[in-house]
Amino acid sequence: MTAHFVNDPAALVPEALDGLIGGAGPGRLARLDGYPDIKVVLRADWDRADQGRDRVAVVSGGGAGHEPAHAGFVGPGLLTAAVSGEVFASPSVDAVLAALLAVTGEAGCLLVVKNYTGDRLNFGLAAERARAAGLRMEMVVVGDDIAIPDTPAPRGLAGTLLVHKVAGALAQSGAPLDHVAGAARRVAAGVRSLGISTSGADIPGRRSEQRFVDGSAELGLGIHGEPGVETFALGRDAEIVDRMAAALTDALPDGGDSGAAGGDVVLLLNTLGGLAPLEALVVVCDLLATPLGQRARLLIGPAALMTSMSMRGFSVSALAVDDELARALLANCAAWTAWPGARELGSHDRLRVLPVPTLREAGKVLASEDTAVRAVLTAVTGALIDAEQALNALDAKVGDGDTGSTFAAAARRVLSELDALPLADRSALFARLSELLGSAMGGSSGVLLSILFAAAGSVGSAGSVGSAGDDAPLADALAAGADAVQRHGGAGEGDRTMLDALLPAVRALRDGGAAAAAAAARSGADATGSMEQARAGRAAYVGGQHLRGVVDPGAEAVAIAFAAAATHR
Amino acid sequence: MTAHFVNDPAALVPEALDGLIGGAGPGRLARLDGYPDIKVVLRADWDRADQGRDRVAVVSGGGAGHEPAHAGFVGPGLLTAAVSGEVFASPSVDAVLAALLAVTGEAGCLLVVKNYTGDRLNFGLAAERARAAGLRMEMVVVGDDIAIPDTPAPRGLAGTLLVHKVAGALAQSGAPLDHVAGAARRVAAGVRSLGISTSGADIPGRRSEQRFVDGSAELGLGIHGEPGVETFALGRDAEIVDRMAAALTDALPDGGDSGAAGGDVVLLLNTLGGLAPLEALVVVCDLLATPLGQRARLLIGPAALMTSMSMRGFSVSALAVDDELARALLANCAAWTAWPGARELGSHDRLRVLPVPTLREAGKVLASEDTAVRAVLTAVTGALIDAEQALNALDAKVGDGDTGSTFAAAARRVLSELDALPLADRSALFARLSELLGSAMGGSSGVLLSILFAAAGSVGSAGSVGSAGDDAPLADALAAGADAVQRHGGAGEGDRTMLDALLPAVRALRDGGAAAAAAAARSGADATGSMEQARAGRAAYVGGQHLRGVVDPGAEAVAIAFAAAATHR
Repeated sequence: MTAHFVNDPAALVPEALDGLIGGAGPGRLARLDGYPDIKVVLRADWDRADQGRDRVAVVSGGGAGHEPAHAGFVGPGLLTAAVSGEVFASPSVDAVLAALLAVTGEAGCLLVVKNYTGDRLNFGLAAERARAAGLRMEMVVVGDDIAIPDTPAPRGLAGTLLVHKVAGALAQSGAPLDHVAGAARRVAAGVRSLGISTSGADIPGRRSEQRFVDGSAELGLGIHGEPGVETFALGRDAEIVDRMAAALTDALPDGGDSGAAGGDVVLLLNTLGGLAPLEALVVVCDLLATPLGQRARLLIGPAALMTSMSMRGFSVSALAVDDELARALLANCAAWTAWPGARELGSHDRLRVLPVPTLREAGKVLASEDTAVRAVLTAVTGALIDAEQALNALDAKVGDGDTGSTFAAAARRVLSELDALPLADRSALFARLSELLGSAMGGSSGVLLSILFAAAGSVGSAGSVGSAGDDAPLADALAAGADAVQRHGGAGEGDRTMLDALLPAVRALRDGGAAAAAAAARSGADATGSMEQARAGRAAYVGGQHLRGVVDPGAEAVAIAFAAAATHR
Repeated sequence: MTAHFVNDPAALVPEALDGLIGGAGPGRLARLDGYPDIKVVLRADWDRADQGRDRVAVVSGGGAGHEPAHAGFVGPGLLTAAVSGEVFASPSVDAVLAALLAVTGEAGCLLVVKNYTGDRLNFGLAAERARAAGLRMEMVVVGDDIAIPDTPAPRGLAGTLLVHKVAGALAQSGAPLDHVAGAARRVAAGVRSLGISTSGADIPGRRSEQRFVDGSAELGLGIHGEPGVETFALGRDAEIVDRMAAALTDALPDGGDSGAAGGDVVLLLNTLGGLAPLEALVVVCDLLATPLGQRARLLIGPAALMTSMSMRGFSVSALAVDDELARALLANCAAWTAWPGARELGSHDRLRVLPVPTLREAGKVLASEDTAVRAVLTAVTGALIDAEQALNALDAKVGDGDTGSTFAAAARRVLSELDALPLADRSALFARLSELLGSAMGGSSGVLLSILFAAAGSVGSAGSVGSAGDDAPLADALAAGADAVQRHGGAGEGDRTMLDALLPAVRALRDGGAAAAAAAARSGADATGSMEQARAGRAAYVGGQHLRGVVDPGAEAVAIAFAAAATHR
């Protein structure tokens, strides 16, 4: 069973709400004294004469597991109170009724409900009872999901939050109940949403069904882990987002193109709790490029708003907006809520000129030919490209698994520029390699190699790299480079870095030539496997038990490079 | 391989940054024209005379995969520019240098760097080159991680964000470079962080090492997936958080107890990208209860700030604060950045009196005994408790997997109140059961059963439930209840709900008694397995291919209940 950060699963929701209330700071949130059955969070300032009671209360809620919805949106300009059930279970009628009685004053109350049978029943009965008790009540049911064609009861998804925001802003501004309810109904009638995920929802204390296979996604799944209407192997994000945007556009009333809005829409990008923020930004990029995205006047998110525990997915909501709705969506609300704000979009100049030409452009040098050097470079880069996956796998044991990709990327760049390199001039070649690696490789290996070749290139004669028979000038140059790496990188021999292969190889090269250098690099690399304490590089953060028997990936790459060079001279 | 929402992995970071810039809206963010090698996001307003250049620039960055860090924090009051590398790889020297040249004016620039070899090298070399080009540069290296004892090079974690915020606020206020850098160094020297996770970091296009076994957590792991210093089976969250808070307290300089601050600290709770927001709130609850939490003057988060793709974990950062730091941390910054704001904590009255007594308290009735009824209730509740896991498993195939737990919870509540029930008075008993189920059970089943018993209790005589021989009055009562369920729930027979077992059972009960009712319930439940379209309940959102052959869990529960009742009369 997946591990969760919880205590007693039975106390999960009350503890989470206590965390929310305590973390909000004094004077902001309170709760009704009804745990565990009644879990109602409300504005702590609602009884102040200048803040509440004479205004319309806006109440919402539903099952837990969707945080920050709904309690995270309680605050001035948003919800007055939120009622929470247990995870993915509607709150009881009593709980909803308690919330309504606690916050409804003369101005009345708008109850916003997501269209699930349980919520509709519990909130509906509570609203009837509150009305019977003499309160002015309006109720809006939101069913914004478009996943299931022709369903009589579309689900409520993250589009509900647009209803909250519009109603909350109007209520805060002092609008009367019929106005607040009317605007809320207009949003509920117009908003459409569609979700997608590559995982289900893991609930603490419950065994989840593992129906997702690696690489697959479900389109149109629900926020409680209900299976999607379509399962497929996930392709390019842009294709998926295009499909979703097109489906939303088709589903908008009149294509969202009616009225004075001229086709303007607000888009809300909701992440489902476990989507990497990096991926969410790619979705934004692709979404804004769609025809629907081009019509976006406002964007809300990406943000985790209506989550499904830690589901790795997102939903997109779309709504045609006019000026009144845009004002309400842009209106200030309590900054300490989870509301991410809406941003007005529009064309703008996004590019700034690079302040300096890149080194690649500045460092133009004359190409020259040396077939031996070409052979060495071809062999070394080829060997590093071949070793990409093996080096990644090695690095995954002690680091972030990218050593192979980093070296291979550098090798590919060098290969791609081979015909433009000054192969016959060692100093110029090394300087150019320094520039190439410094600008293209990235990572610590990149700059260390850039330093290596920069320092090596500034040493000695302009002799050929590959001149067989006298390796001393090359050894001198590489020794100067290795020395610079030690100075800037802070590591030395025995610290479990690529220096453990490089330094012995350079020493061996001077007297024994390429074959001796390769042998020394190999034995130096192998020796790192028994060094249980790394003192530099990312492996320095890894415990000795993980390092035992694992050769340092950087040293291994150096050994591979020297072996390839020796074979092809 | 895990599915990710990306296009070409090689274009991942530029696309994400374009999403950030485009989604921020006009006039806010821009980038240097250097893709793909140079990925620098900067304030679009920085060249306006009233906004930039005459102020200190604050620049930071590092590998991607940690979004919103760092580009998400570019804006007035925070960062002037952010430099991004590829995922988990430091940006190149050229990229950093380009950023420095692009934003540094007469007032100079503070460069904030996380303490990783690659970042230190690349940012350090770039700072040296910028200085050589005549710019006023200061650099602060942040190493806030306390996971690895006695390491010479602690890693930079989310504590870095406190450096950004303090430096950004001071720079925005017009403070000179030495003041900004001094405050940044003070924060860097004082902040301590510790992370924990139950998963590694999945990188698009790369095979991740699956070293986490179900239920295990790693304490002290890095934000690039570096293994933690300790692996263990995850226990209660409060114990873990206690340990982390104690370790942070020990690691704070002078226990954070020095100076005029009187022991006040700021706590930053950073989620790593894939932690369910519900769980994050439990962590807040537990964190505020620790001795360190009791000293918290400010809280930032929980929020995804320095993530590790979609890692399911969090880090806690702690820093002793005085008034100057608190002011800088509370200062306004651009609302459209990812900065969640800091909240001042303090004791406050968090409870509000329930506006009405709960029904449980209001509905006190006199207990009475009827051994036959007791036997039936004991048998039915026992059978539902026994069936909890089986019903959950059934529900997991078509819904959210909680039917068994919902019914079992209700059964346990009824059992626990058995001695207080009016067993000899059917109407009173049904009314009481309605109250109990309505307040304790939750979910749609809860309110439907509450409606069922409320309506059943308002019908006919006060006869015994268990009076053998004449089942007509009981059948009449249950029929009235089932009718109310149909009316309020909107479902009928054949809609694949518990009514498909309940309605035939009630009809059979009148003439055939309990055994016939049990048989009818069973065959009614079984028949739901061949209904491929649910028209009510959560299964209505599920495609027919998922429903085929799966009995409706609610109908199954009804069949189990009637079977148990028949056996024990």
